[in-house]
Amino acid sequence: MAVQTVHDNASDATAASDAGTVDLGPAAALSCRECGERFELGPIFACQSCFGPLEVAYDLPTDGPDELKKRIAAGPDNIWRYAPLLPVPADVASKPNINPGFTKLVKADNLARELGVTGGLYVKDDSGNPTHSFKDRVVAIAVEAARAFGFTTLSCSSTGNLAGAVGAAAARAGFRSCVFIPHDLEQGKVVMAAIYGGELVGIEGNYDDVNRFCSELIGDPLGEGWGFVNVNLRPYYGEGSKTLAYEICEQLGWELPDQLVIPVASGSQLTKIDKGLKELIKLGLVEDKPYKIFGAQAEGCSPVSVAFKAGHDVVRPQKPDTIAKSLAIGNPADGPYVLDIARRTGGAVEDVNDEQVVDAIKLLARTEGIFAETAGGVTVGVTRKLIEAGLLDPTLTTVVLNTGDGLKTLDAVAATSQATATIPPSLDAFRAAGLAR
Amino acid sequence: MAVQTVHDNASDATAASDAGTVDLGPAAALSCRECGERFELGPIFACQSCFGPLEVAYDLPTDGPDELKKRIAAGPDNIWRYAPLLPVPADVASKPNINPGFTKLVKADNLARELGVTGGLYVKDDSGNPTHSFKDRVVAIAVEAARAFGFTTLSCSSTGNLAGAVGAAAARAGFRSCVFIPHDLEQGKVVMAAIYGGELVGIEGNYDDVNRFCSELIGDPLGEGWGFVNVNLRPYYGEGSKTLAYEICEQLGWELPDQLVIPVASGSQLTKIDKGLKELIKLGLVEDKPYKIFGAQAEGCSPVSVAFKAGHDVVRPQKPDTIAKSLAIGNPADGPYVLDIARRTGGAVEDVNDEQVVDAIKLLARTEGIFAETAGGVTVGVTRKLIEAGLLDPTLTTVVLNTGDGLKTLDAVAATSQATATIPPSLDAFRAAGLAR
Repeated sequence: MAVQTVHDNASDATAASDAGTVDLGPAAALSCRECGERFELGPIFACQSCFGPLEVAYDLPTDGPDELKKRIAAGPDNIWRYAPLLPVPADVASKPNINPGFTKLVKADNLARELGVTGGLYVKDDSGNPTHSFKDRVVAIAVEAARAFGFTTLSCSSTGNLAGAVGAAAARAGFRSCVFIPHDLEQGKVVMAAIYGGELVGIEGNYDDVNRFCSELIGDPLGEGWGFVNVNLRPYYGEGSKTLAYEICEQLGWELPDQLVIPVASGSQLTKIDKGLKELIKLGLVEDKPYKIFGAQAEGCSPVSVAFKAGHDVVRPQKPDTIAKSLAIGNPADGPYVLDIARRTGGAVEDVNDEQVVDAIKLLARTEGIFAETAGGVTVGVTRKLIEAGLLDPTLTTVVLNTGDGLKTLDAVAATSQATATIPPSLDAFRAAGLAR
Repeated sequence: MAVQTVHDNASDATAASDAGTVDLGPAAALSCRECGERFELGPIFACQSCFGPLEVAYDLPTDGPDELKKRIAAGPDNIWRYAPLLPVPADVASKPNINPGFTKLVKADNLARELGVTGGLYVKDDSGNPTHSFKDRVVAIAVEAARAFGFTTLSCSSTGNLAGAVGAAAARAGFRSCVFIPHDLEQGKVVMAAIYGGELVGIEGNYDDVNRFCSELIGDPLGEGWGFVNVNLRPYYGEGSKTLAYEICEQLGWELPDQLVIPVASGSQLTKIDKGLKELIKLGLVEDKPYKIFGAQAEGCSPVSVAFKAGHDVVRPQKPDTIAKSLAIGNPADGPYVLDIARRTGGAVEDVNDEQVVDAIKLLARTEGIFAETAGGVTVGVTRKLIEAGLLDPTLTTVVLNTGDGLKTLDAVAATSQATATIPPSLDAFRAAGLAR
């Protein structure tokens, strides 16, 4: 396949380094997900021919599976153990980064009993990442791409998790950061985005306005030298989600789970997890057997779920209205791919309403001691609904993702998580409250 | 040494199991820290002879250091890898627990440059624990003791981190929990304590009133079958802090650091880290060489620091007034032991004011991407102060502890962590704001 030399159609003056010297390990090129055309590694994200999304193509390791497992096991306890499968240089672990990953895969026996799952239920708990969401994974990869391309400023538009992940990673890796947020964000989220000391710009407008502004900036000389992790670095950034697939299989003893329940915002995470699982099969690290992928959305932002149930191939945009704000993308770029993967693997895409999200957050907390963000309430709630509908088989091994931390979405559960009783400091009062046993 | 059979002087009816069958692994007895008298393992915390605090005495492993290192390395990626050195049964890893520990030891080169440390600076970052504070370590051990003693309810008094740790661990381990808090706690902390579904009782009074109430409850039949993690289970609970010492040394390649900076609330954590380091030396897991232990307090609650500087052996209680609420114990039980350890090892105890705490939180965030709780601001701030005073040697290996998560103390930094600029969504406005470069 011919590799074409191209320049970024949006910001061809931004790449400070010579593309010919870019070392991103096994990453060989970018290839168009739609037409397959290949491009040299660079800070580009759309196919010049068909405008399809670009993704990283690899020269994957040729050592046998046993040798590769040994290399991985000898690596660090973070995503860099999978460096041979990621677009990062071989010495990535020695560079300053926040080193996310290798979060807990919790065997959730209490939750399994509540849901009637007998085949083994696991929660992949990404609240254990450095800034407590899965975004640390994707940002960590974007940081290495930014380094390779000679960028000096890291940027993104965000309403929460991503802002913290970019701020933290940039601080440690020695980049300037400039993060754009809607100006009227909740105080707590502003503090979390500001604490790492980068520039934080409130944009007078909603999240769509912030995104439009960032697209303008990336095409302007003002944005020279800027790596927008989820725009011009998106092909690399997205690959970070593959590490969830790798970790889940390694933590299951190099076995594929039968079923995975994954939240859907843009849909990128779900498609990259599928990509990661297919790579593991191809490399012989896991046995080639069927697995089912289920997508989970909130009813108040369920464009993919609606399309799935209607049997459509196209996703009709929605105006989000849900407490699951980290999933509130009304026009998900990878929606069609999610539909394709759910259908191809025999899975489904389902949604739950806000009340069910809150119930599921509490269910996970009281059974397993895991306090999930609203997105985790969505996946647990959808898992329950899929079992009740007979779509998810409770006798099979199932992995449910929790991608964030409940401390960041306290408002969602505050009204219904209060003290059981309030009493004066006396044993009589305690006895009267009926709590002794 | 004779082992005496004793009953809990506070609640001798609470232990549901026969003490003779208690299996807490290498834990052989409880021994009085003051007079050395030994007692059978049980839910007791004060010496019957002299009222001194009890601590766990061990039959430590007799296999050589190389063999023991191999056993540890083969263990899980959490505190249970050190089960041979903890008061837990050998099969502890197979029991439901939240499995804290093995948190990151971050090589903090950016922070080192700012502070002028050339000998290697590390941050032990316990915000990576399941409920994002070091309390998960101590509670995890208390859970196993509660299991061994047949308790069915886990309890504590708390104003924050401990409530979350007990709630989460009890939920997963299958205990009922009943946590007592001051009734006027901030909403966020109430939600964090309530989410795990246990009983949460607001006590009309301050934290001292809550503690007094718990002491009454523990001596009353109402409290039968209750394990108060930081009262009648305290000797076991405290041992969890030893795991910080084990992890730091293992993560340094089985080397002792030259200097450690540890926050001081009750002083238990510092004294148990010292105990852990001494055990490692005794077992031959690390070379026997001197190390210095530094204690860190907030000026608004600095009884140990004041006593240290005045050359006193006794600690005069203070009424706390500081933003570092997780360290705000005005009458620290282990204060005299902290003084002794700091003096014996050639360390010191120092304090910083609230403004310095905030500055240090921001310094750590902007250099290493770690968002620390106020307690982490105290240790980083004290480290800087000790270097400036010539008490901490910047040419030696230094480990600074961050024991909690900034997400839990957002208020401390909110006023000074805000957006750099707020602009309309236009490139002209962005240019005018002077942030482009």
